[in-house]
Amino acid sequence: MALLYLSVPERGAVWAQMLARAGVEMVMGEAAVTDPAAITHIACWQPPEDLARYPNLRAVISVGAGVDQMPPMPEGVILSRTIAPGIEQMVRDWVVMAVLALHRDLPLYIAQAREGCWQLHAPRSAHEARVGIMGMGRIGQLVAQTLGALGFEVAGWSRSGQSTAECAVYDQAGLPEFLARSDILVCLLPLTGQTRGLMDAAFLAQLPQGARLVQAGRGPQLDLEALRTALDSGRIAAAMLDVTDPEPLPADHWAWADPRVLITPHIAAKTGHEEGARHVLAVIEATTNGTPVPGQVDQAKGY
Amino acid sequence: MALLYLSVPERGAVWAQMLARAGVEMVMGEAAVTDPAAITHIACWQPPEDLARYPNLRAVISVGAGVDQMPPMPEGVILSRTIAPGIEQMVRDWVVMAVLALHRDLPLYIAQAREGCWQLHAPRSAHEARVGIMGMGRIGQLVAQTLGALGFEVAGWSRSGQSTAECAVYDQAGLPEFLARSDILVCLLPLTGQTRGLMDAAFLAQLPQGARLVQAGRGPQLDLEALRTALDSGRIAAAMLDVTDPEPLPADHWAWADPRVLITPHIAAKTGHEEGARHVLAVIEATTNGTPVPGQVDQAKGY
Ligand SMILES: NC(=O)c1ccc[n+]([C@@H]2O[C@H](COP(=O)([O-])OP(=O)(O)OC[C@H]3O[C@@H](n4cnc5c(N)ncnc54)[C@H](OP(=O)(O)O)[C@@H]3O)[C@@H](O)[C@H]2O)c1
Ligand SMILES: NC(=O)c1ccc[n+]([C@@H]2O[C@H](COP(=O)([O-])OP(=O)(O)OC[C@H]3O[C@@H](n4cnc5c(N)ncnc54)[C@H](OP(=O)(O)O)[C@@H]3O)[C@@H](O)[C@H]2O)c1
Repeated sequence: MALLYLSVPERGAVWAQMLARAGVEMVMGEAAVTDPAAITHIACWQPPEDLARYPNLRAVISVGAGVDQMPPMPEGVILSRTIAPGIEQMVRDWVVMAVLALHRDLPLYIAQAREGCWQLHAPRSAHEARVGIMGMGRIGQLVAQTLGALGFEVAGWSRSGQSTAECAVYDQAGLPEFLARSDILVCLLPLTGQTRGLMDAAFLAQLPQGARLVQAGRGPQLDLEALRTALDSGRIAAAMLDVTDPEPLPADHWAWADPRVLITPHIAAKTGHEEGARHVLAVIEATTNGTPVPGQVDQAKGY
Repeated sequence: MALLYLSVPERGAVWAQMLARAGVEMVMGEAAVTDPAAITHIACWQPPEDLARYPNLRAVISVGAGVDQMPPMPEGVILSRTIAPGIEQMVRDWVVMAVLALHRDLPLYIAQAREGCWQLHAPRSAHEARVGIMGMGRIGQLVAQTLGALGFEVAGWSRSGQSTAECAVYDQAGLPEFLARSDILVCLLPLTGQTRGLMDAAFLAQLPQGARLVQAGRGPQLDLEALRTALDSGRIAAAMLDVTDPEPLPADHWAWADPRVLITPHIAAKTGHEEGARHVLAVIEATTNGTPVPGQVDQAKGY
């Protein structure tokens, strides 16, 4: 049993210590593999081209929270994404920042600052805005909890529409109603066949006039040209994006220069080295004992 | 018994209805005063020059959360500032936004956007920053609670150093120690003789290198030239200001153009019309019944 590690050396150094302490063999990079049959687990962002090289592979573990970058797994190989409170809290913090920044007109004030213009726009309390969260999984629920505590009127939308402790959750059929009530729309969806291209012109047109958009899911879920049209029509007043399509966003892309758009370069979260290693150890333990595997992805659903 | 109202007509219209319903006479503007002896309460941002004109005046009520704009009151006249959960929550929201924006390098990303530059700076979790809150009153405590829940390591500083449920609070003598531990310094102090000019060069020099500053108190507490020097030396990495000295900040002021500084034009809170009227009615009731007056200011301390 051994873990094949395919990621940055800095993280690898921390993991090596932790895995050694746990008695797990760790192989750094494919070049170092002497016996492919010994490799039972692979931790990576993107796996090697030829997974068939590893006949005893049990699980591939994404070092991030998403698995949309992963190819289909060979029959019987478990796919796990890193589950870590640190990731979830960091994305939550980024989303709370973005929601507040858009709600309190920060893009407008940043634009005014460039002109040296001190002009007030009536500030609104959190109670005056309805937030709609797409994706009510681990992160969405945490966001709902924090924004609800700040006074925002929160609702969620998910595949199942399964209600949570935090707020009402709309299901697939409830999408139009959900969008019509979302003054601030937050995307925390995984990228799947169903969510790719989801936010297109027809979708954005269902938001209330002057809505705000917070995108912390994955770039290909949002059609940036549709966003531009929605901004120009006033349908969307402002947007904050941590993910874009493509990434990096080219230097000459219109969104950089648009005062209604705030962009951060996919920095909503990082995977802490220790947390990541703990997750890998937990996956190894579960696959060894035959217990439920943390972060296991339903490969048919894609998340 | 009558309330003299000296503020904007929009708010006045709401108040007039609420006060009429409560059976309280409300006089709109000094020109409308026929019998000065009937005026027992004045609600205003700044009171009339000649308060002696009103021999039966019991209380002056600031329509805002601060009273630093108020002149000394005549002997026996109570000074009250508006106490309203809405104000406190809105300032809290603004401060949470500012702390997260500075902690997550938003000024840097805004500057990069101008160049169309997608460059990551290692994101940090809330647990990695120590926040120091100056002023642990109604707003400071609320901020401490919310930031603590997000995972920041929070401490406070106040005149009394009286501990609160939320976090440790340093007293006057503890200031150097408090500053040395504050990676993100938040000012929520009232403007008084003691806090005017508090944040000068010697003060800012006591912060850790690369600290962040959030100013939501009152403009004259922060020497903007000292801030500029601290930014240039790297002592302070970035700042977000809702209040400045002077206000409005002149169009040609250096701070507008500085990418390390984010400015909003004193919009952290607004006083809701209904909340303001409720406060005034509570003050009138208390002064009538001889019970403790909500928002009563200790005029010797100045807050
Ligand atoms: N920007 C960043 O740096 C960053 C960092 C981490 C994560 N993320 C993004 O955040 C996403 C969510 O993470 P998580 O940990 O909260 O995931 P999760 O626990 O798996 O939750 C996913 C949620 O999305 C819902 N969903 C999936 N497909 C859907 C569809 N077609 N229509 C409606 N709802 C759908 C799920 O519905 P059910 O509840 O019905 O299953 C579930 O509520 C990640 O996949 C990633 O894209 C971004
Ligand atoms: N930007 C905006 O739009 C906006 C809106 C509302 C309020 N504000 C500002 O926020 C301030 C605080 O409001 P609040 O309702 O929280 O006030 P508060 O309840 O009266 O609390 C004031 C706090 O400041 C402390 N303090 C006063 N003088 C001090 C000194 N010289 N040194 C150290 N600590 C001192 C007090 O210490 P003790 O606990 O020992 O008394 C108390 O903890 C207001 O005065 C105003 O300046 C700004």
